[in-house]
Amino acid sequence: MPLFPTALDDAALERGTVLAPRFGADGLIAAILQHAETNEVLMIGWMNDEALRATLDTGYVHFFSRKRRELWKKGETSGQLQAVREIRVDCDQDAVLAKVIPGGDGGVCHVGFRSCFYRVIEDGALAERPQ
Amino acid sequence: MPLFPTALDDAALERGTVLAPRFGADGLIAAILQHAETNEVLMIGWMNDEALRATLDTGYVHFFSRKRRELWKKGETSGQLQAVREIRVDCDQDAVLAKVIPGGDGGVCHVGFRSCFYRVIEDGALAERPQ
Repeated sequence: MPLFPTALDDAALERGTVLAPRFGADGLIAAILQHAETNEVLMIGWMNDEALRATLDTGYVHFFSRKRRELWKKGETSGQLQAVREIRVDCDQDAVLAKVIPGGDGGVCHVGFRSCFYRVIEDGALAERPQ
Repeated sequence: MPLFPTALDDAALERGTVLAPRFGADGLIAAILQHAETNEVLMIGWMNDEALRATLDTGYVHFFSRKRRELWKKGETSGQLQAVREIRVDCDQDAVLAKVIPGGDGGVCHVGFRSCFYRVIEDGALAERPQ
């Protein structure tokens, strides 16, 4: 049985009150994490229906790991648990935006920066400049 | 000839100065638009190599339309051109974050809200609450 319903039409999809996420052919939707206090965009990950369900039910961000092909509670090993303050869906319900408070060292990135977007593209090259 | 090089290893990918975006099997990477002044997350779109190149070269956001299968200069018909103030890449170079100033009516969303993320998920249902 599907974990979420399907929207009947564009009006329901865009203006309705029913959460009807449109998972892609790979079963995933994009999930953007934004720091709830600083508004920094922290990372993007991928959720299947089970990961979205677990995120909504527990209040902590869960992803689907495309590499390991399994449900992944963000921070379970690193300590960087992501407590959800608010979660939003976009107009065509194929992406979510989670406003979070990162646990552990306060970041999300395995490289050691607070945000995964620590590099700016300038004149075609990359420069490390944390937000 | 590819428009961008490929990173030789993880060190180059994560800490190098060479922009070496990792397009997916479908040739696309996710591109998040964030308002450069309010920090609102506005939308997520998809770029192929040509769209990223055009964005970097022109200073205006270009996407690849998955529906129409073509390069799409955001705002070309709606007037909602997105002027890039800064563009970032994430640790594994498979997503970009563009900080933008929206033109036209100041928004990005075809439904009429400034941001596509105008609905909050609350107790499993959706409520319209623009950021």
